[in-house]
Amino acid sequence: MTTQQLIEQIQIKKSFLCVGLDVDLTKIPQHLLSTEDPIFEFNKAIIDATHDLCVAYKPNIAFFEAYGIKGWQALQKTIDYINQYYPNLFTIADAKRGDIGNTSSMYAKAFFEDLEFDSVTIAPYMGKDSVEPFLAFEGKHTIMLALTSNEGAFDFQTLNVNGKELYKQVIETSKTWKNSENLMYVVGATKAEYFTEIRKIVPDSFLLVPGVGAQGGSLQEVCKYGMNKNVGLLINSSRGIIYTSNGEDFAQKAREEALKLQQEMEDILKTHQS
Amino acid sequence: MTTQQLIEQIQIKKSFLCVGLDVDLTKIPQHLLSTEDPIFEFNKAIIDATHDLCVAYKPNIAFFEAYGIKGWQALQKTIDYINQYYPNLFTIADAKRGDIGNTSSMYAKAFFEDLEFDSVTIAPYMGKDSVEPFLAFEGKHTIMLALTSNEGAFDFQTLNVNGKELYKQVIETSKTWKNSENLMYVVGATKAEYFTEIRKIVPDSFLLVPGVGAQGGSLQEVCKYGMNKNVGLLINSSRGIIYTSNGEDFAQKAREEALKLQQEMEDILKTHQS
Repeated sequence: MTTQQLIEQIQIKKSFLCVGLDVDLTKIPQHLLSTEDPIFEFNKAIIDATHDLCVAYKPNIAFFEAYGIKGWQALQKTIDYINQYYPNLFTIADAKRGDIGNTSSMYAKAFFEDLEFDSVTIAPYMGKDSVEPFLAFEGKHTIMLALTSNEGAFDFQTLNVNGKELYKQVIETSKTWKNSENLMYVVGATKAEYFTEIRKIVPDSFLLVPGVGAQGGSLQEVCKYGMNKNVGLLINSSRGIIYTSNGEDFAQKAREEALKLQQEMEDILKTHQS
Repeated sequence: MTTQQLIEQIQIKKSFLCVGLDVDLTKIPQHLLSTEDPIFEFNKAIIDATHDLCVAYKPNIAFFEAYGIKGWQALQKTIDYINQYYPNLFTIADAKRGDIGNTSSMYAKAFFEDLEFDSVTIAPYMGKDSVEPFLAFEGKHTIMLALTSNEGAFDFQTLNVNGKELYKQVIETSKTWKNSENLMYVVGATKAEYFTEIRKIVPDSFLLVPGVGAQGGSLQEVCKYGMNKNVGLLINSSRGIIYTSNGEDFAQKAREEALKLQQEMEDILKTHQS
């Protein structure tokens, strides 16, 4: 999916919501555990119930890997299901990968070619030659960690280097890399006041924003400081949507939470565009 | 495997070699491609041919993920094979993971519990709460990126923060984390002159050293500056060993390369201990 197509979907759906699929077998409704593939059944129900309210799905790869081969099979079925039935949804492999060049190429192949995701999240610590193999894939997007939503973000990301914070240096340097137009950035919703500074460096880039909901970030604040002329934000909610209920009504309850966020977004978009 | 057991294995085998399993189907002997599981068959032959010359195996997870479910099955079979037949070998899941707390816990579960690796490599960018979930596993080891072997290491890792280079700050900060005694560090062989400085910060920790061979690092230089009283080094070679030949003699040729390194290590150990 191209960036332009993503922008169109945001306009059509009046939503810039991303639903995170962090499937934990200890948290999903018990009646699903007797099915052949509980992880996929859970995802399928969530996707069917929310696809018209969001523009993106973000499977969290750790939550599949933790279940070994069965988990990887569920991941394959989940991405295939989205690509087959809801091809207008933007898909994000939340994998936080990154390694030396030939290894990053293999990760890129795994997520872009084998699984056919539109995008993958990556970590910047190893620098240019660990990221460019992802950027080389035409029509695919690489979402790099910049300023994350967790407490540990303050351990290294905000350290002062060359008179600026490390995360700013990371974003600035990444703009010089080959095919950098394929970059998006992860910026946590818990750091809303930082969006102003980040928009000075990357006014046009899309930002993937985790941390609304369960982690305490504010949608209004993020939009106030982070939105650009094309919206430029994908706001992720995982646990706040998918674990609203663990009864038989789980998908309906997830829809209700997604709808609340979509409506809040629709209101924000009206104000933003007027 | 405990650190003490690893030290004993180094003394018994007179080797601190780690063989990296980066299995690329375009590079392995063609006759293996007709077998049911070429990746596992390749690994099995390499392991059988080198197990007495090395103390560790390091499957590079990207090279399995790139082949989807089949790749994940081959990974499972490879680690099971090592654990069953060569339980004294230290196993490293070279995965470079790291995410917010509950997600890192799932990655730790994947590699320590589901696959039963002794250790996993992780990236430090997200800080304390992204690493401590790995450290919480008793009897397991977390190998954190410090100064990597690639060119991109100079993009961020060597930037000056608080009057010192970022990688030094990363190592220093990590020593304050809970269960930090379970930490080892990745330091590239291509940066041999940096080992002196690193040993001032972590004199006793094990360092996993990629970059000898294909990437141009020198074993002699690394040992000169990086070895401690318990050796404290695991020197990895991947392509330099496993792709010596792509004929039917590939395992024998791999053994010959591993033997050269083991003998060089034995000589170094003699000098070191005298």
